[in-house]
Amino acid sequence: MDIKSRNREYKEYVLEKIGSNHFSKHIDFTITEIKEGSIVAETCFETYMQQQDGFVHGGISSAFADMACGFAAYSLVEKGQRVMTVEMKISYFSRGMGDRIIARGKVVKPGKRFHFCEAEIFTVKEGKETLIAKASSTMAVIDLKE
Amino acid sequence: MDIKSRNREYKEYVLEKIGSNHFSKHIDFTITEIKEGSIVAETCFETYMQQQDGFVHGGISSAFADMACGFAAYSLVEKGQRVMTVEMKISYFSRGMGDRIIARGKVVKPGKRFHFCEAEIFTVKEGKETLIAKASSTMAVIDLKE
Amino acid sequence: MDIKSRNREYKEYVLEKIGSNHFSKHIDFTITEIKEGSIVAETCFETYMQQQDGFVHGGISSAFADMACGFAAYSLVEKGQRVMTVEMKISYFSRGMGDRIIARGKVVKPGKRFHFCEAEIFTVKEGKETLIAKASSTMAVIDLKE
Amino acid sequence: MDIKSRNREYKEYVLEKIGSNHFSKHIDFTITEIKEGSIVAETCFETYMQQQDGFVHGGISSAFADMACGFAAYSLVEKGQRVMTVEMKISYFSRGMGDRIIARGKVVKPGKRFHFCEAEIFTVKEGKETLIAKASSTMAVIDLKE
Repeated sequence: MDIKSRNREYKEYVLEKIGSNHFSKHIDFTITEIKEGSIVAETCFETYMQQQDGFVHGGISSAFADMACGFAAYSLVEKGQRVMTVEMKISYFSRGMGDRIIARGKVVKPGKRFHFCEAEIFTVKEGKETLIAKASSTMAVIDLKE
Repeated sequence: MDIKSRNREYKEYVLEKIGSNHFSKHIDFTITEIKEGSIVAETCFETYMQQQDGFVHGGISSAFADMACGFAAYSLVEKGQRVMTVEMKISYFSRGMGDRIIARGKVVKPGKRFHFCEAEIFTVKEGKETLIAKASSTMAVIDLKE
Repeated sequence: MDIKSRNREYKEYVLEKIGSNHFSKHIDFTITEIKEGSIVAETCFETYMQQQDGFVHGGISSAFADMACGFAAYSLVEKGQRVMTVEMKISYFSRGMGDRIIARGKVVKPGKRFHFCEAEIFTVKEGKETLIAKASSTMAVIDLKE
Repeated sequence: MDIKSRNREYKEYVLEKIGSNHFSKHIDFTITEIKEGSIVAETCFETYMQQQDGFVHGGISSAFADMACGFAAYSLVEKGQRVMTVEMKISYFSRGMGDRIIARGKVVKPGKRFHFCEAEIFTVKEGKETLIAKASSTMAVIDLKE
C-alpha cells in the first residue's frame, strides 16, 4: 500500500517528537530510517534490558513496539497533530539475545481518526536477525486544540 | 476466586525471581504485596519515564503491566517452573502524571499450561490514584527441563 | 464507578439498535438487563453454535462478546450517535457446554471519543455458571453526520 | 518462511476437522485452498451476517478470523493433535459490504506448544477485494490424551 503523509516535513516532525521523548532517549531508541508510514529504529542490547535469564525483557520489547508504532504514525499526521496509543497487543515469538535490538514499525491502515499500526522486534547476533515479537496497535490522531 | 499456589514458599520465589531481573531493578519495580495469585508493586515516577508531553510513557506502563502479570503468575507455579509471557494487550485509559506509579497484577484464570492474568496501572498524585491503563495477558508455565 | 448516560432514553435506544441488527437476531441474542454502561444478554446453546467437539465455538463467544460490549457502549451515547468496534481481544478460559450462554458487557472507561469495554461469556448447565471467555474492546463513538 | 507440516495428510486432516464443525457449516465457511501453514476460505455474504447498518457484523468477521487461524494451525499439527484458541485480537479496518467474504489465515510463527497465527478478512464487491479486518491469535497444540 502506498501511503502519503499529510505533512511534507514528516521526517523533521518525527525527529522533533523523538528528540523530546525522555524514555526513548533513556533506552537510546535511535531511528535509522523514516518513510511515509514506517520507521526503523535500533539500540544496543544493554544488560539492564534483560530479564532474569539474560534474554530481552518483555517490557523492553513492548516499549520498543509502542515507540515504533507511534513514530510510524507520527510520520503521517499533520504538523501540530499528536499521536496517542489507544491500545497495543504484543505476541512473543522467541526469546531474544544478541548485540542489538531492531524495531520496524509501520502503519498498516491509515485513517482520519486512528492509524492501525504493526511493529516487529528483532535481536541481532553476529549479523543475523531473529524476529522475537510482533505487535499490533491503534494510534489515535489528536488535534492540538483537543 | 480463591486461588492456591503450588509452592508453599511462593513469596520467597517471587522475590528471588525479581531480584535477578535486570530491567525490573533498573526501573526500581518494588513489590509491596504478594498474595497467592496477585502482587502489588510501585516505583517513583522519574523524568526518564516520560514521553514528550511529560506523561507516563506507554512503554513504561506496558513494561510495568508485563511485570505485574508475570510476578503474579510466578506466585502460583511450582518451585523450578518458569513463567513466560506469550502475549499481552494493554489499553490506555488516561494520560498519567504524579509522584508514583502503582501496578496491581493478578491471575484471573489459573491453569496447568497457562495463567491468564490482568494488570492495572495507576499514577498517584497527592495521594489520589488514577487508573491509567489496563492489560490482559497469557503467561505460559514452563518446566525447567523444557 | 458510577457511569451516567448522555441519553435519558438509553434503554429504548439499545433495544432499537438491537432490533435492527440481523446477526444479533439470527443467534437470538436476547437482552435481559440494561443499565447505564452495562448489559446482560443470553441465548439457548444451539447445536449450530458448536465446534467439532461439541463445545461452544470460539467464533460464537467472540460474536457474543462483541455484541455485549457494543450494546453496553450504546447505553451511554447520545441519541443519533453510533458505536463502532475498533478492536477486540478475547481470551478463552475454558471449554463450554450447557443449555444457555450468557454475556455480560460493561463500559470500564467511558470517554468522548471511545468507550473501553469488557465482556464475560458464561455457559450455564443445570443452573451453574462457568466463565468461558473474557474480552476487552475499544468502541468508537461516531456522530451521525460523520 | 517455509513452514513444514508434521502431518503428510494435512489437507485431509483440515477437511475432516471442518466437516465436523457445526458453526463452520452453519455459516457455510468453505475452504478454497489449503497449504502447509495457511488456508483460504470464503462464504456468501448473507443478510443474517449484517449488523444494523447493512455492513458485515463484527462478530462474523471475528468468527471467520478464528476459523481461518484455527484451520491454518490444524494444517501443521500431527494427526490426533487438536488445536485450541487461547486468545485472539481483531482490528476492524473498514466497514464491509459485498457479495462474498474471504478469510485468509496463516501461521506466522509455528511452535511445539503454540502456533501464532494471523488472519485477514476481505469483502468482495464486483470482483474487488477490500481488507476489512485483521486478527492475530495464539493457538495451543493439544495432544489427544490431554
